[in-house]
Amino acid sequence: MHEIHVGEDLRDRNREIAHENRKHLKKHGIVTLNLMSAPGAGKTSLLVNTIPRLKDRYRIGVVEGDLQTSTDAERVGSLGVDVFQIQTGGVCHLDAAMVHSALHRFELDAIDLLLIENVGNLVCPAEFDLGEDARVMLLSITEGDDKPKKYPLMFRESRLLLMNKIDLLPWVDFDTEKAKREAREINPDIEIHDISCKTGEGIDAWISWIERFCKRLEVT
Amino acid sequence: MHEIHVGEDLRDRNREIAHENRKHLKKHGIVTLNLMSAPGAGKTSLLVNTIPRLKDRYRIGVVEGDLQTSTDAERVGSLGVDVFQIQTGGVCHLDAAMVHSALHRFELDAIDLLLIENVGNLVCPAEFDLGEDARVMLLSITEGDDKPKKYPLMFRESRLLLMNKIDLLPWVDFDTEKAKREAREINPDIEIHDISCKTGEGIDAWISWIERFCKRLEVT
Repeated sequence: MHEIHVGEDLRDRNREIAHENRKHLKKHGIVTLNLMSAPGAGKTSLLVNTIPRLKDRYRIGVVEGDLQTSTDAERVGSLGVDVFQIQTGGVCHLDAAMVHSALHRFELDAIDLLLIENVGNLVCPAEFDLGEDARVMLLSITEGDDKPKKYPLMFRESRLLLMNKIDLLPWVDFDTEKAKREAREINPDIEIHDISCKTGEGIDAWISWIERFCKRLEVT
Repeated sequence: MHEIHVGEDLRDRNREIAHENRKHLKKHGIVTLNLMSAPGAGKTSLLVNTIPRLKDRYRIGVVEGDLQTSTDAERVGSLGVDVFQIQTGGVCHLDAAMVHSALHRFELDAIDLLLIENVGNLVCPAEFDLGEDARVMLLSITEGDDKPKKYPLMFRESRLLLMNKIDLLPWVDFDTEKAKREAREINPDIEIHDISCKTGEGIDAWISWIERFCKRLEVT
């Protein structure tokens, strides 16, 4: 049972660092969102749709988590915001220590909104608090309506669920109502919006959600 | 650096158990395939399309890996083959010890072909040898053509890549040739087939692949 204890030690250590990150981010008045999803659900596309809409209003920083490439960071960086790339070297999630290192690379007083794109994985990212204010998850409808029951932790830990790629709804077997109902059984407080990063549908609602969330945390 | 050593110990221990599994499976003349993919790429749908085509020719056993549900096992079990469900309790991959436990639940002399459906995750399953004869990965084209470069280990470790959901090709931005080229840059020996579990396209080629593979290992 040795491994399990080690796992718990790592988890405790992560919690401490996440707590430090949270204090640090708060001190600088930064609102932080942790974006999580399976691979290819559209996290980067969401950022590409979001940043131009918000960058005149908020000073935005982005942390990009990837196993070993930097293509997402380049794509987001071209939008004219500060991006720091974390290459996890094969690790399947971001942890608080990785984000802590990233924070040293930003001029924190020049940021209002920090968007963290986690590694594409529906499992482990949900287990690691990074010090964020809220977790936002994307579910691509092409992944199937059984995902809330199969990967409950991420649905439980997320404040907002964006059901992406709804433009593909006519061509895939996906029961939207079932997926929403089962997500809410796991997390009655979860807010859910349908979006399409391709057609732009639902992006307004997501932008409003960010604005309301920042307002609540008093970042304007 | 303590964690890293623990990780290596775990990896070494996994290798030993995988070696035992492999010997054991070989002794009973069983061909074993480890199916891996991101969540919702269609592993279970592939099994549902595969088993009826092969079950008169091979005696089939299935190991279903899931975090905590048994819906996939029920779906596959209804096809009239022996299924054993491994619930990992939140662990994001199968390991050799889990499969070892599962093997005790099968009557191994009554099986020719063992199909293992791994947990939906493009990262960690590729790191854990289960004792299989070959790894087969599915990439749903809805996940994007950048996946080989972003998740190279799974592409490197797989003998066969099935690009699934090609029925959706007209509606998604996916460069099939780029994805194939980049998969082959990572793994020059990888065999690639386009399939659709929905329309049945390409399933014949996959069935032939299994038959050839079994024949090579002298299971008929």
